[in-house]
Amino acid sequence: MSRDTVLTLLRASGGAFLSGEELSRRLGLSRTAIWKAVDALRKDGYDIEARTSMGYRLVAAPDALTEAEIRPLLRPTAFVGRELRCFDEIDSTNTYAKQIALEGAADGTVVVANCQTSGRGRMDRSFQSPRDKGIYLTVLLRPDLPTERLMPVTALAGVAVCRAVEQVCGVRPGLKWPNDPVLGGRKLCGILTELSVEAESGRLQYLVLGIGINVLHAAEDFSPDVAAMATSLAMELGRPVPRPALAAALIGELDKLYASLRAGDLSDYLAEYRRDCVNLGKTVQLISPAGRETVTAVGIDPEFGLVVRRPDGTEKTVRSGEVSVRGMYGYVE
Amino acid sequence: MSRDTVLTLLRASGGAFLSGEELSRRLGLSRTAIWKAVDALRKDGYDIEARTSMGYRLVAAPDALTEAEIRPLLRPTAFVGRELRCFDEIDSTNTYAKQIALEGAADGTVVVANCQTSGRGRMDRSFQSPRDKGIYLTVLLRPDLPTERLMPVTALAGVAVCRAVEQVCGVRPGLKWPNDPVLGGRKLCGILTELSVEAESGRLQYLVLGIGINVLHAAEDFSPDVAAMATSLAMELGRPVPRPALAAALIGELDKLYASLRAGDLSDYLAEYRRDCVNLGKTVQLISPAGRETVTAVGIDPEFGLVVRRPDGTEKTVRSGEVSVRGMYGYVE
Repeated sequence: MSRDTVLTLLRASGGAFLSGEELSRRLGLSRTAIWKAVDALRKDGYDIEARTSMGYRLVAAPDALTEAEIRPLLRPTAFVGRELRCFDEIDSTNTYAKQIALEGAADGTVVVANCQTSGRGRMDRSFQSPRDKGIYLTVLLRPDLPTERLMPVTALAGVAVCRAVEQVCGVRPGLKWPNDPVLGGRKLCGILTELSVEAESGRLQYLVLGIGINVLHAAEDFSPDVAAMATSLAMELGRPVPRPALAAALIGELDKLYASLRAGDLSDYLAEYRRDCVNLGKTVQLISPAGRETVTAVGIDPEFGLVVRRPDGTEKTVRSGEVSVRGMYGYVE
Repeated sequence: MSRDTVLTLLRASGGAFLSGEELSRRLGLSRTAIWKAVDALRKDGYDIEARTSMGYRLVAAPDALTEAEIRPLLRPTAFVGRELRCFDEIDSTNTYAKQIALEGAADGTVVVANCQTSGRGRMDRSFQSPRDKGIYLTVLLRPDLPTERLMPVTALAGVAVCRAVEQVCGVRPGLKWPNDPVLGGRKLCGILTELSVEAESGRLQYLVLGIGINVLHAAEDFSPDVAAMATSLAMELGRPVPRPALAAALIGELDKLYASLRAGDLSDYLAEYRRDCVNLGKTVQLISPAGRETVTAVGIDPEFGLVVRRPDGTEKTVRSGEVSVRGMYGYVE
């Protein structure tokens, strides 16, 4: 598409003017075609200055989760993001990824949307996905690994999110056990991993790993029921964060995670998880169908279970799915 | 549809003639509309005799896996088959069921096809699904049960198949561990259960249970690589078996199975499985990546594991997915 090639050249010129004549010559397009491409780019939110006798220059790119914005920021990856499917609006990136998995989509295919109309969270909860605010991203993975080895993938993805945020924003989120990246004591990100498994053998067919990061939300972008527990990068940092750059960093980290999963070496992830876990050393409430119990979180076991100490000094390890954990005074503490 | 209402009346008259005038009056349709409906039914394989002054009578219905043929044979069910989606041809009933699961299809929805172009078996194998020969049926279930409770569902479905075949054909297939209904020492049916699970909590979202029964196949309907291991009801019985009746019986049995699963009482199924299992008391070979081992199958544990005795008298229990089992001289024995 001439729109994309014009954008590539404008971007490559680093903000300097490129004459219409040069664009026309280098792309083998008519001056009219160049003008139309510039017009299309402007409609997509690109700020392109045009000056007589000087030509065109790219002043600013939009904060858009499009392949045109994300792809140039991606380092080469082995699997994750080699195929990228970007949507302005989608029902749910996880649902879409499962649909294309059935149709044979490639290992590592990434689905990104600017808005989800039926975003899903764990335990059939919804995930609020307002337009132009978050990164709603799912990766389809087809590892040839036993299902047990994949159970910690959601916790590992939490570490990948922390790394990506640190790269782009310079702050490192914490992790609320089992796998919520948090900042300022509030939830920054939701992660939902779904597996397709053969019942009898337990063989994994594919998994979809969905990540929703609250990036540009203001307080009023959250519904009242989650507002007290949720935050965004912009709210915590007091400045906007470029979503394409964060999406690209996340894709790069997910590719590293996938390599580590396949290699079976998760020691770095476990070490970072332990360092980043905000619950450790704190009093927490374990909430289960059996009731509430007040304990101290003292460790993370190699399967990402939470080791807790009871008031009588005895310890036990709890698994996600069995209990939920709350701090004493709210979501984290 | 006038086609279906005309068929219902013709069927209800039990092979006696119904005059065009009466059909027209009872259905509020013109004589031309009745004639068109009869013509459409004939094109679908219904043998309808028409005689001047006597009217129409149904001589024979086609052996078709259509809702018109299956529904009248179904007893009322709580869940399974309340919604029935019949196809002449489909890629895979399991794949389709997973697609409609993502779109919110109801618990118990049954998908039946007369032919699969990409029928799937366990371990990514294909399942041969020639047109007009087998029953290719998948049920979508959404039980609110822990995933562990669902692991034996494929073995249980094997028992449901044996029951349905016994009802319709008067012969009881055996079960080759872990879950292949067999007749005459050859495989009669393939079963593939696929689960969609949340990774972290292990919560089940839905499962699809796919069953392919070889009904009317002749030896030449199987490809050479499976012909020695496979059989059909018609080949074993020496007579055709009505597929709509067998599909209806199977749907009824799957509904009972689903009720037992939800109630958590599988003792009848376990007892029948133990009675029907053709391996028990026999010498079998355990085949695993580690090699082959010759042992005697001596029992089935409550989780449908196979208890085997080694030549030195020690016993162990093997699980499906870990080993495959072959008789000494072929598929069963």
